[in-house]
Amino acid sequence: MLLEGVHFDRKTASLEQVGYKAMAVSLSDCAAMATVPVGAVAAVGLSENFNEGELRRLHAGLIRAADKYDCPLIGGDITKWKSGQGLSIAVSMLSRPGGCEPIRRSTAKVGDVICVTGGLGGSAGGKHLEFQPRVKEALKIASLVKVNSMMDISDGLSSDLPRICRASGVGALIEADKVPLSSAAEKKDDPLSAALDDGEDFELLFTLGAEQADKLVESWEETLKITRIGTVEAGDEVRIAMSDGSITSLEPGGYEHL
Amino acid sequence: MLLEGVHFDRKTASLEQVGYKAMAVSLSDCAAMATVPVGAVAAVGLSENFNEGELRRLHAGLIRAADKYDCPLIGGDITKWKSGQGLSIAVSMLSRPGGCEPIRRSTAKVGDVICVTGGLGGSAGGKHLEFQPRVKEALKIASLVKVNSMMDISDGLSSDLPRICRASGVGALIEADKVPLSSAAEKKDDPLSAALDDGEDFELLFTLGAEQADKLVESWEETLKITRIGTVEAGDEVRIAMSDGSITSLEPGGYEHL
Repeated sequence: MLLEGVHFDRKTASLEQVGYKAMAVSLSDCAAMATVPVGAVAAVGLSENFNEGELRRLHAGLIRAADKYDCPLIGGDITKWKSGQGLSIAVSMLSRPGGCEPIRRSTAKVGDVICVTGGLGGSAGGKHLEFQPRVKEALKIASLVKVNSMMDISDGLSSDLPRICRASGVGALIEADKVPLSSAAEKKDDPLSAALDDGEDFELLFTLGAEQADKLVESWEETLKITRIGTVEAGDEVRIAMSDGSITSLEPGGYEHL
Repeated sequence: MLLEGVHFDRKTASLEQVGYKAMAVSLSDCAAMATVPVGAVAAVGLSENFNEGELRRLHAGLIRAADKYDCPLIGGDITKWKSGQGLSIAVSMLSRPGGCEPIRRSTAKVGDVICVTGGLGGSAGGKHLEFQPRVKEALKIASLVKVNSMMDISDGLSSDLPRICRASGVGALIEADKVPLSSAAEKKDDPLSAALDDGEDFELLFTLGAEQADKLVESWEETLKITRIGTVEAGDEVRIAMSDGSITSLEPGGYEHL
């Protein structure tokens, strides 16, 4: 569910982009489990003065993502708020297994290598409106190797990696120097914090055995980068090794739902 | 999608009732096609100061409806609005065919008898928060006879019957004296208008051949009343015969989504 003022700002995002993003975040949820999107429904709560032209632009964005990922928009609901309320869009999606069991966040194993796709951070500068859900890449990864756990990074690596750890009953140690920075993050004052905390990267975060990780990196021919950033450990601590050799707790700095 | 101030008022509805209603309206959508609910997801946009106790009460209402209709809540999304925004809840539901093809609103046939379940009108007085989605009854009807078209009355008979007609390329004539009044409608100044326009009845509106209608009424043993209110006609006019013998156009007076 995207909320005006939280997930988008109508001053900087077109309604077409808002529609695209609403569909894309759910497509990314399919990617997160390596499943194949089948169809989507969208429920929109329109602000009071929303007009038909605006609704058409919102719809066009939903359809752009739906077409690109072959996931038809098959229904939905349109309602109008009373005064003073913002636009809200909830997309729900059905997906099917894509040649393997859906990959969960609760099945990371001690000793796993932790990997991410792409570069992290700075998404609010623009990528958050035009990101590419990693549906194809997730299916490709799952077809090449045995992945033990996976999710998409929606709230930031520092918030989402602890979710995998809690769900799996494990800890983790990542290396600050290995966290891949997006070009947007590199331009910021503190690129590492941006990569850890900014959220809305919609990249894949996954864990797999060391041999499987070697095999994946060797056989990977897509343009999207895969980076090994750390290791799953016993215990429940989620830590980060800084470039000066110190090791500290990785504190969630991303979006909190509550 | 339920929106605060549109579908419920927190002054008169408890959060538990809001949760129940959010799930029940989607269950009614399953009933509308005579399908069997399988599972639901709920996305909630919380107003800024919503606390955990309130969220638990909302959840309890969702679960009350989910349990009653054997449709588990299998996932969802929780986000928080910035200041000044109301509560929104979008439930999406998966259902499966229930022994017959899903019944559509686009397949009414000229000559069909038009039927409704229960009594109509006055739902805002309380029923809209505690109505019983007609899931069981829809499946029962569809198992007994061949139903040509069906929907649930969510926006009012005067708005919803024209939808069946437009979708099916037919007209309709209903008789004012036959429209079943709820006890809440009977207490209002203009009970007929209440029954036609109030909306949120969540009763079934369906059409079927005359012989099938006879058979249904004869074999129907449920407590829920089924009433024949009119006939599907050729053309595109939707009309109502008043008790004085005059015939006028049935003007949509219910909830307009846009």
